[in-house]
Amino acid sequence: MTAAVGRVAAALRKRALAARPGERLPSVRALTAAHGASPVTVSRALALLQEEGLIEARVGSGTFVAERPSEAAAPDLAWQHVALGAGPPSEDLVALVTEPAPGVLPLSSGYADASLQPTRALATAMARALRAPDAWARAPVAGLPELRAWFARRAGGADLQDVLLVGGGQAALRTAFQATARPGDAILMESPTYLGATAAARALGLTPVAVPCDGEGLRTDLLEEAFARSGAKVLYCQPAFSNPAGVSMSERRRAEVLDLARRNYAFIIEDDYAADLAYAGRTPPTLFSRSEGHVIYVRSLTKSVAPSMRVAALCARGPVMRQLRASRVLDDFFVARPLQAAALELVSSSAFPRHLARLQRALGERMGHLCGKVQERLHGVEILVAPEGGYSLWLRLPAGMDDVALAGRALRAGVAVSAGAPWYPTMPVPGHLRLSVAGAPVEVLDAGLERLAAVIRL
Amino acid sequence: MTAAVGRVAAALRKRALAARPGERLPSVRALTAAHGASPVTVSRALALLQEEGLIEARVGSGTFVAERPSEAAAPDLAWQHVALGAGPPSEDLVALVTEPAPGVLPLSSGYADASLQPTRALATAMARALRAPDAWARAPVAGLPELRAWFARRAGGADLQDVLLVGGGQAALRTAFQATARPGDAILMESPTYLGATAAARALGLTPVAVPCDGEGLRTDLLEEAFARSGAKVLYCQPAFSNPAGVSMSERRRAEVLDLARRNYAFIIEDDYAADLAYAGRTPPTLFSRSEGHVIYVRSLTKSVAPSMRVAALCARGPVMRQLRASRVLDDFFVARPLQAAALELVSSSAFPRHLARLQRALGERMGHLCGKVQERLHGVEILVAPEGGYSLWLRLPAGMDDVALAGRALRAGVAVSAGAPWYPTMPVPGHLRLSVAGAPVEVLDAGLERLAAVIRL
Repeated sequence: MTAAVGRVAAALRKRALAARPGERLPSVRALTAAHGASPVTVSRALALLQEEGLIEARVGSGTFVAERPSEAAAPDLAWQHVALGAGPPSEDLVALVTEPAPGVLPLSSGYADASLQPTRALATAMARALRAPDAWARAPVAGLPELRAWFARRAGGADLQDVLLVGGGQAALRTAFQATARPGDAILMESPTYLGATAAARALGLTPVAVPCDGEGLRTDLLEEAFARSGAKVLYCQPAFSNPAGVSMSERRRAEVLDLARRNYAFIIEDDYAADLAYAGRTPPTLFSRSEGHVIYVRSLTKSVAPSMRVAALCARGPVMRQLRASRVLDDFFVARPLQAAALELVSSSAFPRHLARLQRALGERMGHLCGKVQERLHGVEILVAPEGGYSLWLRLPAGMDDVALAGRALRAGVAVSAGAPWYPTMPVPGHLRLSVAGAPVEVLDAGLERLAAVIRL
Repeated sequence: MTAAVGRVAAALRKRALAARPGERLPSVRALTAAHGASPVTVSRALALLQEEGLIEARVGSGTFVAERPSEAAAPDLAWQHVALGAGPPSEDLVALVTEPAPGVLPLSSGYADASLQPTRALATAMARALRAPDAWARAPVAGLPELRAWFARRAGGADLQDVLLVGGGQAALRTAFQATARPGDAILMESPTYLGATAAARALGLTPVAVPCDGEGLRTDLLEEAFARSGAKVLYCQPAFSNPAGVSMSERRRAEVLDLARRNYAFIIEDDYAADLAYAGRTPPTLFSRSEGHVIYVRSLTKSVAPSMRVAALCARGPVMRQLRASRVLDDFFVARPLQAAALELVSSSAFPRHLARLQRALGERMGHLCGKVQERLHGVEILVAPEGGYSLWLRLPAGMDDVALAGRALRAGVAVSAGAPWYPTMPVPGHLRLSVAGAPVEVLDAGLERLAAVIRL
């Protein structure tokens, strides 16, 4: 299918879904003019929609929006509610991963926009990857050795056998949780923390226990108490540029966290999602590089390369790797070989360091600009930490302002921001907001802040 | 990295791992000759291994195999065994997914070998897919609409909104189990059945309940009893060319199974893994096409296209789709867009039906040949069903012969076959063996059967 057919089909699909069944579509000629496409393209797009059952041709009279089968016959599916019970609590996660509607300014994105992706280098990398005769063969469960070796070097002191590749950061967290904890177990988490981690833990039947953070990161006095009370053997954290709070753990806290893990015979799952997103290009040494087997290290390429480069690594030492591998194979066997091979070509190329430097500079500029604008335009809103890496800016709203209601009003006013509440693993602290610079160049940040300021003033 | 560098690096890596630390490697000149590669290629391969920490250069004296850090310092990791407890039971699954060692004939493969893959059409499809300007952008959680529409047509009577794309058949099963059952729930399964399904169910804390099969498929008298006793609300089955038994459910049993699901307000997870693998090109109508909301239908491209085309679809009607989507996003967000776009280009191309016809014919020929050879060469071994589709042939060994021990002896004699025991979801019925034609052309089948015959005679 050509891109033009896809484009016209997408427009017509939208139109057909919005229309009443039985409505007549314009002629091919009219559609050709309306979409600036050739008659062949329009005909192929129409054929596609007909195959999808969205439209139907009637001989001699034209093309019409089809009856929807679900309206024609409505079987009684109420029994499903009884059979299903409560589902996984991931609506907030779906919202985070989904592109906002057209016209809505994305100040909540989890991914860098297209202008920050190494589009040309990716194309070259995949083209080279596909030249291998075994391009589409199965890949080893643990991943391609050369790419594992690259992640091993980046993790700081891992061997080849300490690295396992999975299909992105979310898959990495799920695999790590499943390998180290059983349904009913407690898991300690920074509070606030990445909501996708909380949702994955809950879906596995784990019980999140919140450990509050301050400007130095995890409160280790409370962490000690949390280990003692919960009996947890797993701590999940983001020591560098945490999402959403933008906090990096201080040197003193890092040492204390490692010491507590040792004394409690526990694992630390270190989610280094922002490893490549430090504005000055430098991140603190990882916990993993300072531990002898207590740290399971997570690093992904989706944040620093492109959303569809769905490759991440789990690094760990000791018997836990066998359990990680067993957990991983149960989920989806292995990462598609073309993705792994393209990732390897990309990170081995001279374009990659240049791309990272450009990405880091751009994110730093955006964040600096955003912080200035927040102070200038959002009266009574407080910046809690000025981040030195990552995507998110964490704000405290004026006293008494409801973050969930505000985010809803902002969305209706055309700007997507994240309410603070879902980022707390247990009890939310009200009145926080997360803004993201990932999907918004400076001019989009400006326009989005204007809309947000108008909503806050109401 | 070029293919040549990869090849030389792989050879040197193997050598370095087998060697003693401190051993001197041959000169670049000698390696150039030994590997038929240019000096530049050899140097780049050596640089790669040095980065991996496997070798080290000493000024003026050459290149040496490095000390292994894990030998140098061996931290005490025994505490991990206490923290971890029992892991997911998936060693058999890892074996199924992993390529056998060089020299071992693959009569156990879960994937078609390279000669059955549409290599050229795949290259064309991916090249076209990468031309889109948003090739590496995020994809919708549910998948690309055009590809979902294709799966909807193939499922028989699904609408676009009834289809959710995931990263392969294993991911589909996991997602379906997680969406419909909670830890501690019973799940009914055909016995024998696909071992990856059993492992995924157990890892989620579900309790498999075995429902025996005969030559017509699921024993519905026992299925009724199993529903009544266990309170299960989920049945997992493969109605067409089941893996491993090769049985297709009779028309009468299909009607009874659907009726039992209705009367028990239960879901059927219909794993149509062999939908494209019928030797005569035709499969029975799916359960999904005859149900109003009781069937969750699974169909994958990995079996009929290539192991790394990791795309599969879940089709379902009603509220359960929301739960499937929520479960899916928790696992890994969405399938990488290039894979989805390449899959769409491939299945829309004129090459695809030709490829399928060729694949089906080749599998049928292999299976016919294998059945003949088994009768000729394996005395006392009984073919239980002569399959009309799929990869597997299910055999009964002579009375008293241990299938697990036999598979182990066969592997040592250079032929990989699957013992029957792991394919039973609960209590194994001893003395069965699974052979697969997927990875073995006729001459490999012949050679493998000779080795197996020799082992059985012992």
